[in-house]
Amino acid sequence: MAEKSVKVGLVGFGTVGSGVAKILLADADAIAAKTHLRLELACVVDKDTESARPVKLPDGVLTNDLNKLLNNDSIQIGVELVGGTTIAKDIQLKMLAAGKDVVTANKALLAEHGSELYETAYKNNRCIAFEASCAGGIPIISGIRTGLAANNITAMYGIVNGTCNYILSNMTTKGEDFAEVLAQAQQRGFAEADPTLDISGGDSAHKLAILASIAFGCEILLQDVFVEGIGEVSKDDIRFGGEMGYVLKLLAIAQKDGENRISLRVHPSFISKDNHLADVNGSFNAVSIFGTAVGQVMYYGRGAGMMPTASAVVADIIEVALGNSATIFRQLRLKPRNEVEPLINKIDNLVSRFYVRLMVKDQPGVFAEIGRILAENAISISGVLQHEGQGPDNAVPVVITTHPTRQNKVTAALNDLGELNTVCTRPVCIRIVDIPEDKDS
Amino acid sequence: MAEKSVKVGLVGFGTVGSGVAKILLADADAIAAKTHLRLELACVVDKDTESARPVKLPDGVLTNDLNKLLNNDSIQIGVELVGGTTIAKDIQLKMLAAGKDVVTANKALLAEHGSELYETAYKNNRCIAFEASCAGGIPIISGIRTGLAANNITAMYGIVNGTCNYILSNMTTKGEDFAEVLAQAQQRGFAEADPTLDISGGDSAHKLAILASIAFGCEILLQDVFVEGIGEVSKDDIRFGGEMGYVLKLLAIAQKDGENRISLRVHPSFISKDNHLADVNGSFNAVSIFGTAVGQVMYYGRGAGMMPTASAVVADIIEVALGNSATIFRQLRLKPRNEVEPLINKIDNLVSRFYVRLMVKDQPGVFAEIGRILAENAISISGVLQHEGQGPDNAVPVVITTHPTRQNKVTAALNDLGELNTVCTRPVCIRIVDIPEDKDS
Repeated sequence: MAEKSVKVGLVGFGTVGSGVAKILLADADAIAAKTHLRLELACVVDKDTESARPVKLPDGVLTNDLNKLLNNDSIQIGVELVGGTTIAKDIQLKMLAAGKDVVTANKALLAEHGSELYETAYKNNRCIAFEASCAGGIPIISGIRTGLAANNITAMYGIVNGTCNYILSNMTTKGEDFAEVLAQAQQRGFAEADPTLDISGGDSAHKLAILASIAFGCEILLQDVFVEGIGEVSKDDIRFGGEMGYVLKLLAIAQKDGENRISLRVHPSFISKDNHLADVNGSFNAVSIFGTAVGQVMYYGRGAGMMPTASAVVADIIEVALGNSATIFRQLRLKPRNEVEPLINKIDNLVSRFYVRLMVKDQPGVFAEIGRILAENAISISGVLQHEGQGPDNAVPVVITTHPTRQNKVTAALNDLGELNTVCTRPVCIRIVDIPEDKDS
Repeated sequence: MAEKSVKVGLVGFGTVGSGVAKILLADADAIAAKTHLRLELACVVDKDTESARPVKLPDGVLTNDLNKLLNNDSIQIGVELVGGTTIAKDIQLKMLAAGKDVVTANKALLAEHGSELYETAYKNNRCIAFEASCAGGIPIISGIRTGLAANNITAMYGIVNGTCNYILSNMTTKGEDFAEVLAQAQQRGFAEADPTLDISGGDSAHKLAILASIAFGCEILLQDVFVEGIGEVSKDDIRFGGEMGYVLKLLAIAQKDGENRISLRVHPSFISKDNHLADVNGSFNAVSIFGTAVGQVMYYGRGAGMMPTASAVVADIIEVALGNSATIFRQLRLKPRNEVEPLINKIDNLVSRFYVRLMVKDQPGVFAEIGRILAENAISISGVLQHEGQGPDNAVPVVITTHPTRQNKVTAALNDLGELNTVCTRPVCIRIVDIPEDKDS
């Protein structure tokens, strides 16, 4: 079988872009041996053509003029690695209009403007491939779209932000505070100088919107996802939760119930220390998926970084060049917004177990008051933890875990509890997520 | 986009066949909504048309006549789920000759006669898809072929036989003997009445040959795989290993070194209890793959069973119907035997750490003798475990772990040790596999 030559143009010569260039330049022969495709890096566009990069491009490949890519009809695939939702969108639309298939790692853009881009791609008879947008090198999107295609996917639990997982695991193992560990993460390159998008849960929400769209076959928007970040997590709660058998993770959760109602949420979550996701440490990602036929499947690997993400980008380039991406893209038929919107379950309706920590005055009657408020809100206590000894200002931490309860009842109870004179600070509330681990029956 | 109707013929109406029929009949609408494909189960062939099955076929679909499938030109895809390497091979060859694409879960057939079948498929311009042949519902083959296509895969460590993993995990948690746990596994449906192929490691070797062929792009034969089963594993060694921080798993290992030499082996393996594979319990499967760009990726899920395996079969049917399997199959260019054979590393050259247990007479001078023999074979001791107290016949177990040593040196030392008067029974030797877990640097 003869080799097929495919020219690739890259926009964005940062970390991931350098990784992609590195693979395309160094491994062209290996890829050709495996795939019969001769991938050629024809053009790299970046406004900065001066800074040193970890890869040396052949002369004439680097340019700051996007038109060199757009107007070169021999370039079949355009890779957008600029990031953000403004210039990047413009670049993708222009590439599609110029007849290029698009490969991208841009989760924010797809989560916010996916439909418009997909529509444009369909109209131009082109495709958009975005394996690298979620969970870096882990081939999770192709896993869902092809490997699990025979399944009705009912739930997905993911650790999809390496920065947050790095921070939470290090807080857990070292017993250190959020700010301290964040600073270390920044120093060691596991957190951005401005970590807001990661810490806030926003990045995880972007990824969840994309993954859930594909898993459920529905047009999911960012606004459908309830989001709480990890900025207020304290080492005390990680420790108390640990004593009760839980590990704290920032989970991205998508669930579909028997009536096709969809819940989408990103928040700090206590999970059983026996769950496989509890062992996902540092900057690693993992996603557990539940399908009607397959049961539980879990994917684990590096969710970010130059080479892992480049691995996914180049995998997409290969799939686009082979024509498979086009087939899969064409058959992706998402249920439209007017049908999806009524199915989205609001967080108030969530039924979950909860971890609640109250800082209370160490005096008689406190438990009676707490008990009364929980009872009034029909909240049943599952476990209680109060260590002997006193904290600062005669305040002691009381930890309560609940049986499954509706979110709005807990919200109401927390308001009432917060108003008690004996409760010193705003109650801390963290959802306990009982992931239904698949086991031998 | 209009729906495309695709007719499927199934040969073999056993457990997995019933699962496939179930999905095709019950989920045709859901699959059509996701893929634009209208899959129709046109024909099910089995010599037994009488026994009750867990799924009810429409009238006229079940037949004992293979020709009804072969001669029906409207059937595009033939699914072979008969198993075995004789009749099944004949069926696949006939289906290819009749112009059908083939989907199969038959690992033994592919591992033993893959090349001949692939050749026939190429000649007939057809494809063979075999996601279900390895690790059941886990989409591992598509993961390697597409998701990790940009990588040079350097190693793969898999738990790919659910029966063995069920037995070893239960021996570990319950402290029971092999025979006892095997009987329970048979009773509960996790082991066949004749479990030889599983217990011997043969089934894992079949899967390893297929996975390594794809991962390394080489024509790998079953004979290239060194195989040792779990039939002689004792609960004592599981316990002693556990005390030293190890968990016993039957691993299927494929490694490629810097000079492209390939090692392939299936054997009981002590792995660190901190490794993710150590937490894979019961009948579950998992595979850790190491790639040059992606680092470590792990897949986890159900490796067998009616619906998980059916999930993979139907995923393949969809990929074949979409045309993607044909593209991927055509571009699969395996390095031929004459080039591969010199690259296969024999087990004698393996460098590994080893766990050795000797039953020795409890008398002076024993350690001196053991030490002398190990020294003569240039084997360096890493750890020693001898509990106080005596076993039966005044024999006590002495456990020694070694630093990395060549297999042939250990084999020689074991022979010498076995001949000592003070060593009461044949020495037990289990390889320690130090899986290079990818971590944050």
